[in-house]
Amino acid sequence: MSVKTGSLTAGLIVIGNEILSGRTLDANTQFVAQKLSGRGIALAEVRVVPDIEAKIVKAVNEVRAEVDYVFTTGGIGPTHDDITAASIAKAFGVKLHADPHARKVMEEHYGRTDLSEPRLKMAMIPVGAKLIPNPVSGAPGFSMENVHVMAGVPKIMQAMLENILPLLKEGPPILSHTVTCSLRESEIAEKLSALQDKYSDIDIGSYPQYRSGPNSLSLVLKSTRPERLKEATAELVEIIKSLGDEATPG
Amino acid sequence: MSVKTGSLTAGLIVIGNEILSGRTLDANTQFVAQKLSGRGIALAEVRVVPDIEAKIVKAVNEVRAEVDYVFTTGGIGPTHDDITAASIAKAFGVKLHADPHARKVMEEHYGRTDLSEPRLKMAMIPVGAKLIPNPVSGAPGFSMENVHVMAGVPKIMQAMLENILPLLKEGPPILSHTVTCSLRESEIAEKLSALQDKYSDIDIGSYPQYRSGPNSLSLVLKSTRPERLKEATAELVEIIKSLGDEATPG
Repeated sequence: MSVKTGSLTAGLIVIGNEILSGRTLDANTQFVAQKLSGRGIALAEVRVVPDIEAKIVKAVNEVRAEVDYVFTTGGIGPTHDDITAASIAKAFGVKLHADPHARKVMEEHYGRTDLSEPRLKMAMIPVGAKLIPNPVSGAPGFSMENVHVMAGVPKIMQAMLENILPLLKEGPPILSHTVTCSLRESEIAEKLSALQDKYSDIDIGSYPQYRSGPNSLSLVLKSTRPERLKEATAELVEIIKSLGDEATPG
Repeated sequence: MSVKTGSLTAGLIVIGNEILSGRTLDANTQFVAQKLSGRGIALAEVRVVPDIEAKIVKAVNEVRAEVDYVFTTGGIGPTHDDITAASIAKAFGVKLHADPHARKVMEEHYGRTDLSEPRLKMAMIPVGAKLIPNPVSGAPGFSMENVHVMAGVPKIMQAMLENILPLLKEGPPILSHTVTCSLRESEIAEKLSALQDKYSDIDIGSYPQYRSGPNSLSLVLKSTRPERLKEATAELVEIIKSLGDEATPG
């Protein structure tokens, strides 16, 4: 997908033992993927890593070398298991410092007298980073070069992402058409493969839905080129008809 | 977590453009994490990669070098975008072949005359792999050394995982206690950090729940040692009381 549909790519690093233990279902990936896609940026890789500095550093440095933008979620709170800021500093070979802007933002949110030591930990930001506003709970995220560090709590992450998006380059919109039919995958596989060969610039995916009965098949076409997409979709509808079935959009 | 609580570790590779585009919410990770945890195997890393052979090969080879077991989900169907078997063969430097056992299983499921070319594609398995039964839709998964290749459709993946689990080594059970309170993270952070220092063999995580009000905080303690876990949990309950709040289990 990243190869065919996106001129801009992103990676997401989900930091959190709670996802790896199965305690929490990660819904941030889907939100980030959809929002980026809407800006013409294709999510090319996601990694979920534990709250272990060496693992975070490795993931950040490997992924940021391969994509245009990296996003991280989780680990920026006030407790001992929040080690993302320190890990990002290490990944970039810079120090953490008490960022005066972060402190000011937090004074405004909590009041000066309520700035306890743990809260001040959330103002410890890698040297050279720019803050990402947090309208929900005060403590900011930050951007270090192409790495954007966000909270893990979905509501806060979503607000931070909305603040980052306007600052990113925009790719050509990734357009998507979905056609649903009641064929089995094996019935349409050969003709679908031929269609993919013909439209090599279009990303064609085949997704059977077992929840809604064994024979509900969604075929998804993605491209940044509206005319080609229209053409390929029309051909797909004809293929489905030729196999004795009916195509439903969406 | 993997470091503290698990003697056995696993990695999960989710193969699928539909997760990266945001079309589909990945629920397989949580299911796999919980099931493995129940066998004393800690999930140490998850990667979501697109339907691109080079990306799959790289992820599989990197992750299998670091953990005891690797699981993959997705990409084993009959269509052109199902490239997992070929990618796994490449990762291990072996060929794909028409596996006679896989063919037999599929003949039994579909009937011999219904074994079309696309369906036979699903019997193409890396040389040396062992089949994983698929009671839902016939086409098997397979295990190649420590890499277990499963379907992406949750119902099928779950059935395959249940067939793999009894074949894996079992670690000491990873026990978990959760204590909920209405403190803010910043109020308990310092004492929680001291508790973590004292019980360095226990994994202590702090998870604020913004959905259920700003002051609902879950503290999760994990260990394979029941006595130590009990002791640390009792101390945590006392800490919460000393801060003027009440601890609720679970």
